[in-house]
Amino acid sequence: MRIGVLTSGGDCPGLNAVIRSVVHRAVVDHGDEVIGFHDGWRGLLEGDHRPLDLEAVAGILATGGTILGSSRVRPEQLRDGVERARSHVAKLGLDAVIPIGGEGTLKAARLLSDAGLPIVGVPKTIDNDIASTDVTFGFDTAVGVATEALDRLKTTAESHQRVLIVEVMGRHTGWIALHSGMAAGAHAIVVPERPFCIDELTAVVGKRFAAGKRFAIVVAAEGAKPRPGSMAFETGGTDVYGHERFAGIARQLAVELERRLAKEARPVILGHVQRGGTPTAYDRVLATRFGWHAVEAAHSGAFGMMTALRGTRITLVPLAEAVERLKTVPHERYDEAGCVL
Amino acid sequence: MRIGVLTSGGDCPGLNAVIRSVVHRAVVDHGDEVIGFHDGWRGLLEGDHRPLDLEAVAGILATGGTILGSSRVRPEQLRDGVERARSHVAKLGLDAVIPIGGEGTLKAARLLSDAGLPIVGVPKTIDNDIASTDVTFGFDTAVGVATEALDRLKTTAESHQRVLIVEVMGRHTGWIALHSGMAAGAHAIVVPERPFCIDELTAVVGKRFAAGKRFAIVVAAEGAKPRPGSMAFETGGTDVYGHERFAGIARQLAVELERRLAKEARPVILGHVQRGGTPTAYDRVLATRFGWHAVEAAHSGAFGMMTALRGTRITLVPLAEAVERLKTVPHERYDEAGCVL
Amino acid sequence: MRIGVLTSGGDCPGLNAVIRSVVHRAVVDHGDEVIGFHDGWRGLLEGDHRPLDLEAVAGILATGGTILGSSRVRPEQLRDGVERARSHVAKLGLDAVIPIGGEGTLKAARLLSDAGLPIVGVPKTIDNDIASTDVTFGFDTAVGVATEALDRLKTTAESHQRVLIVEVMGRHTGWIALHSGMAAGAHAIVVPERPFCIDELTAVVGKRFAAGKRFAIVVAAEGAKPRPGSMAFETGGTDVYGHERFAGIARQLAVELERRLAKEARPVILGHVQRGGTPTAYDRVLATRFGWHAVEAAHSGAFGMMTALRGTRITLVPLAEAVERLKTVPHERYDEAGCVL
Amino acid sequence: MRIGVLTSGGDCPGLNAVIRSVVHRAVVDHGDEVIGFHDGWRGLLEGDHRPLDLEAVAGILATGGTILGSSRVRPEQLRDGVERARSHVAKLGLDAVIPIGGEGTLKAARLLSDAGLPIVGVPKTIDNDIASTDVTFGFDTAVGVATEALDRLKTTAESHQRVLIVEVMGRHTGWIALHSGMAAGAHAIVVPERPFCIDELTAVVGKRFAAGKRFAIVVAAEGAKPRPGSMAFETGGTDVYGHERFAGIARQLAVELERRLAKEARPVILGHVQRGGTPTAYDRVLATRFGWHAVEAAHSGAFGMMTALRGTRITLVPLAEAVERLKTVPHERYDEAGCVL
Repeated sequence: MRIGVLTSGGDCPGLNAVIRSVVHRAVVDHGDEVIGFHDGWRGLLEGDHRPLDLEAVAGILATGGTILGSSRVRPEQLRDGVERARSHVAKLGLDAVIPIGGEGTLKAARLLSDAGLPIVGVPKTIDNDIASTDVTFGFDTAVGVATEALDRLKTTAESHQRVLIVEVMGRHTGWIALHSGMAAGAHAIVVPERPFCIDELTAVVGKRFAAGKRFAIVVAAEGAKPRPGSMAFETGGTDVYGHERFAGIARQLAVELERRLAKEARPVILGHVQRGGTPTAYDRVLATRFGWHAVEAAHSGAFGMMTALRGTRITLVPLAEAVERLKTVPHERYDEAGCVL
Repeated sequence: MRIGVLTSGGDCPGLNAVIRSVVHRAVVDHGDEVIGFHDGWRGLLEGDHRPLDLEAVAGILATGGTILGSSRVRPEQLRDGVERARSHVAKLGLDAVIPIGGEGTLKAARLLSDAGLPIVGVPKTIDNDIASTDVTFGFDTAVGVATEALDRLKTTAESHQRVLIVEVMGRHTGWIALHSGMAAGAHAIVVPERPFCIDELTAVVGKRFAAGKRFAIVVAAEGAKPRPGSMAFETGGTDVYGHERFAGIARQLAVELERRLAKEARPVILGHVQRGGTPTAYDRVLATRFGWHAVEAAHSGAFGMMTALRGTRITLVPLAEAVERLKTVPHERYDEAGCVL
Repeated sequence: MRIGVLTSGGDCPGLNAVIRSVVHRAVVDHGDEVIGFHDGWRGLLEGDHRPLDLEAVAGILATGGTILGSSRVRPEQLRDGVERARSHVAKLGLDAVIPIGGEGTLKAARLLSDAGLPIVGVPKTIDNDIASTDVTFGFDTAVGVATEALDRLKTTAESHQRVLIVEVMGRHTGWIALHSGMAAGAHAIVVPERPFCIDELTAVVGKRFAAGKRFAIVVAAEGAKPRPGSMAFETGGTDVYGHERFAGIARQLAVELERRLAKEARPVILGHVQRGGTPTAYDRVLATRFGWHAVEAAHSGAFGMMTALRGTRITLVPLAEAVERLKTVPHERYDEAGCVL
Repeated sequence: MRIGVLTSGGDCPGLNAVIRSVVHRAVVDHGDEVIGFHDGWRGLLEGDHRPLDLEAVAGILATGGTILGSSRVRPEQLRDGVERARSHVAKLGLDAVIPIGGEGTLKAARLLSDAGLPIVGVPKTIDNDIASTDVTFGFDTAVGVATEALDRLKTTAESHQRVLIVEVMGRHTGWIALHSGMAAGAHAIVVPERPFCIDELTAVVGKRFAAGKRFAIVVAAEGAKPRPGSMAFETGGTDVYGHERFAGIARQLAVELERRLAKEARPVILGHVQRGGTPTAYDRVLATRFGWHAVEAAHSGAFGMMTALRGTRITLVPLAEAVERLKTVPHERYDEAGCVL
C-alpha cells in the first residue's frame, strides 16, 4: 500500500507522534510505503512531498511542531483544488491519504472524501472542540502548560494583592479554561459557550476580598464574551481566513474589574506557549494510537472515517458526523467546577 | 449532613485534591459538616479525627501526599473492627463515610458497606488496575514522571552505548510500563500480565545493535516475570501485608542481557518518585470531579457505590463490581504498542 | 538576640527560602527570637508583625511568593517614617532588622541604616540588576521559565512560519533577555542598555528567511527601545511609584517587522509567570545561603551591609555601594551571545 | 583555522551546547573549519571524524547527550597513542583540538598538550569536582533533577511515615548531595569528603521522630562512607577503568537505620536520570560561553589552557592546575547547610 500523510492548521503537540506512528505501523508491520506532503493541503494540491521511512521519523516522538510543515488554506482554495488533489493522488499511486488536522482540515477531508478520494482523518486540536471523540491530542499539553502558569501566577497575585485575569486558548469553547481553571483552583472561569454577567463576576471576586483573601485568579477563554449590555466590549473583528480575531478579553476585564473593585487587576495572556513544545505523555500515547488506527483503517478500506477516542478504546467515526457541530462544554461540567460564571 | 473522609494505602498524587473537593462541595454548596479521619482506617477504628473546613483545605489542590495521613491495615484487622467502626460512625453522627483508596481499601469499604455502613468509595491507584473505571487519578502523574525520566535516560543510554532496563511501578499490571514506554518510544516493554521469553527479548535488543543503533531502552513493570524455565529468576517473597515483594526484575534482566549480548546493560529503578509530588492537571481535574460526585452520591443515598470515569462522565458503580477483579491491560493495547513482549 | 524580617517589592522566587533560612539559623543555632513584619515596610512603619518560629516556616522552602506579604511604599513615605520605624524597633526590642528586597528596598534600607538602625540587607531581584553581587536569587528561576517558554514557542513559530517577538522582564537591564535568549538559541536579542536599530534587526531576521529558514525568534527585554529616530515608538509613561511603565515593545516590534518583512510577526508577552512559583534549586540554595549569612552579619554587628555572592562565596558589601548604580550587562557578554543588537 | 572537537567521558547535559557554540563562533565569526571526532579520544586516535558545519549543529542546543558520541579510554591507551594522535592532527591540518570532558579527559588533554599538541580543554562534569573553575555545566541540571525528585519523595515519605535515603551522584565529592539536599530541605546529608558517624546520623533522624515528625529524608552521595568501625560496610570494588564502583550506600544505610530506629527505611537510587536529557538554562548559557571562549583561546594560541568560570567571567586556566587536585566541598559550606554530618 502507498499512504500519504499531511498535517494542517495550527501547531499542536503530538503531530509528530502521529506521523511517526503511521510510518512505524505502515512500514514495519505492513510493508507499506509512506510519503509526507509538505505544508498541509498545499503539498497535496501541488504534489510537493517526500518519502517517509523509519530514519525520517527517528527521534520525533517527543518533539513539538510538525516535521512536514503546515499552512492554512482557505476553504474555497481547496474546493477548487479537488481535481488537482485527485490527480496527484493518482500520479503518486496513493491508496490512502491521512490528513491530520482540526475542524477546518476535517471539513476539507470530508469534501475530498465525498469526491471519492481515499481519506482517513486524524483529529487534532488543542481546543478539544471536535465532536465524536472524547478528546484529542494536544489538549492535555495545553491544559498542562496553562495550569503550570496558573500555579506560578498565584503566588504573584497573592504577593501583589491583585486580581489576575489569565487568558487561555479557546476561541469557541471553554475546555482549556475549564480544565486549567479547575486544576489550578481558579476563583472564576468565563467561557465562550456562556456569555458572562460582569456584575456577577465582580460580586464573586469582591466577595473574596471582603472575606479577607488577598488575591483572585480569573481564567478567561479567549473567546469568552460578556452578556450583551452587561459591559462595554470591543470585538476583535475577523482575519483573512474568516476566523474571529480574539478580542483581548483579559485586558478588557482587567480594566473593568479594576474600576469596579478598586483593586489592582492585571491581564496575563498565555498565548502561543500553550500550543508548542513537547507533548505530555498522555498526548504522545493518544497520538501514537491514532496513527496506528489510521493505518488500520486504510488497510480495511474504512475511508471517510476519522479516528476517535471513546472511553479507553480507539474507534472510527464518520468524518461527516465529526464536523457537523462543535463539541461545547456540557452543563454538568459547569456544575462540577463550581466557579464557571 | 455529616460526612467523614479518609485516605488509605500508598501515596498517590491527587488525594488532597479529592479531600478539598469533598469539603468544597459539601460545605459550600450543601452546608454539610465534614470531618477527616487520621491515618486511614486506623482513624475510623479509633475515632481519631479532626474537622475539615474550607481553611483546612486551602492551598492543598496541587500538593502531593495526603493531609490526613495514611496507613496500611491488614484485612483481618478491619474484619474484626466492623463493630468499632460502626460505633464511631454512630457516635460522630456521620451520614456518610468516603474512603479514598486502592484495591485493598475498596475491599474493606465493601465489607463495611455490606455490614450496613453508609459508604461511598473513591478509587485511587497509580497502577490503574481498578476495574469499572476507565482510569483513576495518580496514574497520569506516575506515567508523566516515568516518561520524563525515560526521556532523560535515552541520551545517557546513547552516549554510553548501553542497554538500560528501566523498572517502573506495576505489581500486577503493566499500565504504567505500557503508557510510559509508548510515550518515550521504548524498544521493548515487559509486563506482569504476559510472562516474557528472554530469548525473544534478547533478539529484539540484539537486532537493534545489529542494525547499527547505539542503545536500547527496555521498560519493565516491577511485577514482570520471565516465562517459567526461560531464564533463572529469583522472586522477592511476600511482605507482612501479604503483598508480593518486587523481585528486582531490572537488575536480573541487566545481568542476563549483558551476558547474552556482550553489551553493557544497566538497571534503573525509578521507585517512589512515581507516586509522590504535585499531580498533573489531568489528575487534579479527575480527583476534583471524583470528590464532587462522591458528595452527590452521599446526598442521594447511593451507598455501596464508587465513583468511576466512563468516557468523559463520572458515574457510580457498585463497590462489589469494582473489587471483583483486577483490570489488566487488554490484548489490543499490546498490538498498538508494537513492542510489548 | 531579637531579629525582625520583612520582604518588600515585587514577587520573587526564593523569598520564603530566605525567611526560612533566617529562622533556622537564628532560632536553632543561635537561640534567637525572630519576628516577621507584614507587607514589607508597611509592617515596620506600623509595628504590624508576628512571631516566626520553626513551625511557621515549615514547608515553605520550595514555595513561591512570601508568607509575610509585600507592598510597595513610595520613597518619600519611608523618608518620613524613619522615626516611626526607630520607635517600633525599640519597642519590639530588636537587635537587627533584615529587609529582603530589590533596589528600592535596599535604598530604603540604607536610609534607615544611615539613621542608625541595625540593618542587614538581603538583595532580591529577578532582573539581576543589583550591583555588588554576582547574582541574586529569583533570576535563575525567571530565566528558566522564560527559556522553557521559548523552547515551546520555537516549534509554533516554525509550524506557522512566523517571526515571534517574545517580551521578557527587564525594565532597565537585559539580563533575562540575554540569558534566556542564549539558552534558547534566539536569533536576535534587544536590551535596554543598547538602543537597537530597527534596520539592523530587520536585516538579521530577513537574512534568516532569505537563507530558507522558516521562522525567527526575537527576544526583547520589556525596557528595550529603538534608537531615537530609528522607528516610530510610543513610550509607556510612568506609574504612581515613578517606575516607567513598559511600552509594549514586543507589540510595537511585531507591527513594524510584519510591515517591513511581509512575514507574519506576533508578540508574546511572558509577563508575571516569570516571577512567581517554585524557585529553581539554584535559587533555593542561594536564598538559603543569603539568609544564613544575614543572621551571621547581625551577630557580628555588620550593620549597613548586604549579603552578596562573589564567585562561590557569600560576602558582605556596604549597602551604600550596592545601591550606587544599576548593574548593566557588560559589553563582552554581548559579544559572547553574538545576537544582541 | 581548522579546529577539531571531541567529547569524552560520561553523559553530561550541555555537551551539545558546547559543540554548537564552537561551530557558531568558529565558522560564522572567524570563517574557520571545524571537524568533530567520533566517540571521544578513540576518534582522535583513529582519525575517525566528520565535518561540523552550521547545519550539523542546528537544533542541538537544548538536547542531552552528544552528537559526536563518547567513549571511555584507559589512561595507558592514550599514553601509548600520543604519536598516533599527533599524526592525525598533522594529516588533518588541525590548528587546534578542543576536548570536552571531565577529570580523566583533562588529564589526557594535558598529556597531549605537554607533548606539544595544540589543545584547549573545556571542563565537563556533573559532579562539579574540577578545580580552577567555580562550576561546570551539567552540575546545575543534575542538581535540578535530584531536587525535583526529592520534592516528590517528601510527600511519599510523609504519607508512608518512612525514612527515605536518597542516593545521588558524587563519587568523590558531595556537591550534588549538598546542593540538592539544601534545595529540598533534607534532614541529613552524607558526603564522601567527610566519613559519617552512623550513631550521629541515627540520632539526627531519631530526634525528628521523637519530636513528632512523620518522616525524614537523608541525602547520600554515592561515594559517602561511614567512619571506619562505625558500622558494617561493604565496598563496591573497582571497575575496569580503575574507578571505584559505588557501594550502594543508600541500601546499606536503609538496612542499618531501619534496624536502629525501628522505622521503615527505604533506599531510592536516582541514578542515570541525573546525567541525561535537556540542560537547564544555566547550563546552556555556561556551555555556550565555554565553547565561545575555547575558540578564542585557540585563535590567540592559548594552548594547554582550559576555560573556567570565575565569578561572572570566563577565563583561561592552565590544564596542569586544573587536574592537580579534585575540588572538594569546603568546610564553610557544611556549616551553611547545617545538616551535613
